[in-house]
Amino acid sequence: MSEVRRDIVTDTWVIIDTENDEIPVVTADIPFPDGPCPFCEGNELNTPKEIYAIRDGSLPNSQGWKVRVVPNINPILRVEGELEKFGVGVYDMVTGTGANEVIIESPRHITNIADLEQEQIVLILDTYRFRIDDLHKDKRIRYVLIFKNYGRLAGSTTISHIHSDLIALPATPNRVKQKLNGAYEYYRYKERCLFCDIIQQEIEIGERLILQTEKFAAFTPYASRFPGEVMVIPKYHKFSYKLIDKSDLSELAYVLKKIFTAIRTGFNDPPYNLVLMDSPNLLPRPDYWKTIDQDYHWHIEIIPRIFRTTGFELGTGFYINRYSPEKSARVIRASL
Amino acid sequence: MSEVRRDIVTDTWVIIDTENDEIPVVTADIPFPDGPCPFCEGNELNTPKEIYAIRDGSLPNSQGWKVRVVPNINPILRVEGELEKFGVGVYDMVTGTGANEVIIESPRHITNIADLEQEQIVLILDTYRFRIDDLHKDKRIRYVLIFKNYGRLAGSTTISHIHSDLIALPATPNRVKQKLNGAYEYYRYKERCLFCDIIQQEIEIGERLILQTEKFAAFTPYASRFPGEVMVIPKYHKFSYKLIDKSDLSELAYVLKKIFTAIRTGFNDPPYNLVLMDSPNLLPRPDYWKTIDQDYHWHIEIIPRIFRTTGFELGTGFYINRYSPEKSARVIRASL
Repeated sequence: MSEVRRDIVTDTWVIIDTENDEIPVVTADIPFPDGPCPFCEGNELNTPKEIYAIRDGSLPNSQGWKVRVVPNINPILRVEGELEKFGVGVYDMVTGTGANEVIIESPRHITNIADLEQEQIVLILDTYRFRIDDLHKDKRIRYVLIFKNYGRLAGSTTISHIHSDLIALPATPNRVKQKLNGAYEYYRYKERCLFCDIIQQEIEIGERLILQTEKFAAFTPYASRFPGEVMVIPKYHKFSYKLIDKSDLSELAYVLKKIFTAIRTGFNDPPYNLVLMDSPNLLPRPDYWKTIDQDYHWHIEIIPRIFRTTGFELGTGFYINRYSPEKSARVIRASL
Repeated sequence: MSEVRRDIVTDTWVIIDTENDEIPVVTADIPFPDGPCPFCEGNELNTPKEIYAIRDGSLPNSQGWKVRVVPNINPILRVEGELEKFGVGVYDMVTGTGANEVIIESPRHITNIADLEQEQIVLILDTYRFRIDDLHKDKRIRYVLIFKNYGRLAGSTTISHIHSDLIALPATPNRVKQKLNGAYEYYRYKERCLFCDIIQQEIEIGERLILQTEKFAAFTPYASRFPGEVMVIPKYHKFSYKLIDKSDLSELAYVLKKIFTAIRTGFNDPPYNLVLMDSPNLLPRPDYWKTIDQDYHWHIEIIPRIFRTTGFELGTGFYINRYSPEKSARVIRASL
């Protein structure tokens, strides 16, 4: 029998096959560079000029860096221009104002986060914090999404050198709104943070829990859309990623390295996405987000892309997950 | 510059790269059968027993059929059992009650709808109508989704023999609800069908129109999520697919064959999904759908899967489309 589980945060449904015991396996297909990799140290002139870098006193756009942030060479949104809205007959559009940056996460040609040193992951996480904080000063920006695509099936088509993409959007995206609404409704009813309650329940039950440290927990969500999906979340309430204590970055880096290493072992190096689900930009803070600092709770989604979406997911917005999160948690725990 | 376009029906947004002129090409990778194909004529005993078939007087589960409908051998939802709801701590679930059928669309080993005769497509479309009508008699069923996956990137992983999947769900899916809400809000405001207005506008403007017959229109949607995406819709208002006139099936079959043939030529045989976006089951008819017969309008979505979704789409519910629907329409029209 299957279970049709509701994701309480987004109010969407996932059909979970609770009977299947076969671990699904799709190995990541990593794009191979045609020529010299533009993200490797020494090739700085092959990227647009850097916006930000962590350097030991070396000059911008030269060697001697740990993390570099550059504009996307083929940006889907651009910083220039006013944000304008148009009606096109019955339709609506907004000009493509925003930002599209690339965070290059190692000077060496590494592809999987599991192969980075913990100290390097700390620098990356601090760069995320810095870029979000910086972009939030622009009042046209409503939401900053940072995400990572590993392997072709996760959408990595050209450059395999480890990096994250950053897209700063002129509108708060649907899925974020769904999460904000779910969190707000729960808070209005219970006067408690929905995510805090989920964390407490997952730690108590334990069957989906993968690991916890003093400050962070990692578990497979009850309504996981994909086999091996993991949520990493701070155990103590914090609504916005940019408010993370610098002292917590090391613990978060430890958890991420552990999880990505275990996913690689347990699911045979699958393609994956990482998505940082942060709060929207609150300048100016709209009235309907008046309790956001109490009701929302930032988190990271790690999503192995072992199954491809079909016409079913495109048509319904539902997902079918053929391997239960309880079994996925067991596979990942056994590989820790 | 990009345009951020709103899909007025679902109230979701798509970032469209209006500058890129390069036709994206990904050729469908068709799964090759390991052994004898269970869907070919003569292998009827390799499938579960048929639920329905179009036959010339031959016995069930024997040769001599045009279209066969069988239960999915590995169903994600099952007809047996009561529909029950449970609370699991803070979470909710529903038992996996529903139906999961396979519509086998030719006795011959054909893979692409473009290779079927128009008369055969008529029989398939009539089978869709019959199965929806039959399943709507079951009051546990809220929505019947019929969809087709062609090529691995569109989610076809095992059997390439032409077929559609049918999943009858115990809940109305989100994306359908978004469409119903969009249509209802527009109707409440304008007292006109949103889809009828869209069709009229697309025919007037013409730049996204691919073809029209007396009864049907096909165009690339203004906020297309994927290159080559096409909407096929009846020009005369009809809210539910099962009410289609038998005499219209031949014209719809003509349009589908034309479109799939042109997509194959124009985009070099891409993987694709087809999704029938029908009305929900209205037995019992809830109060908030009281104008559904006037505000909703069934349609077919044809979605080439030329780009893979990344962490961006998973995290936001937004889409990025790197090839504009105006250019896609030109490519498809030129291949008609």
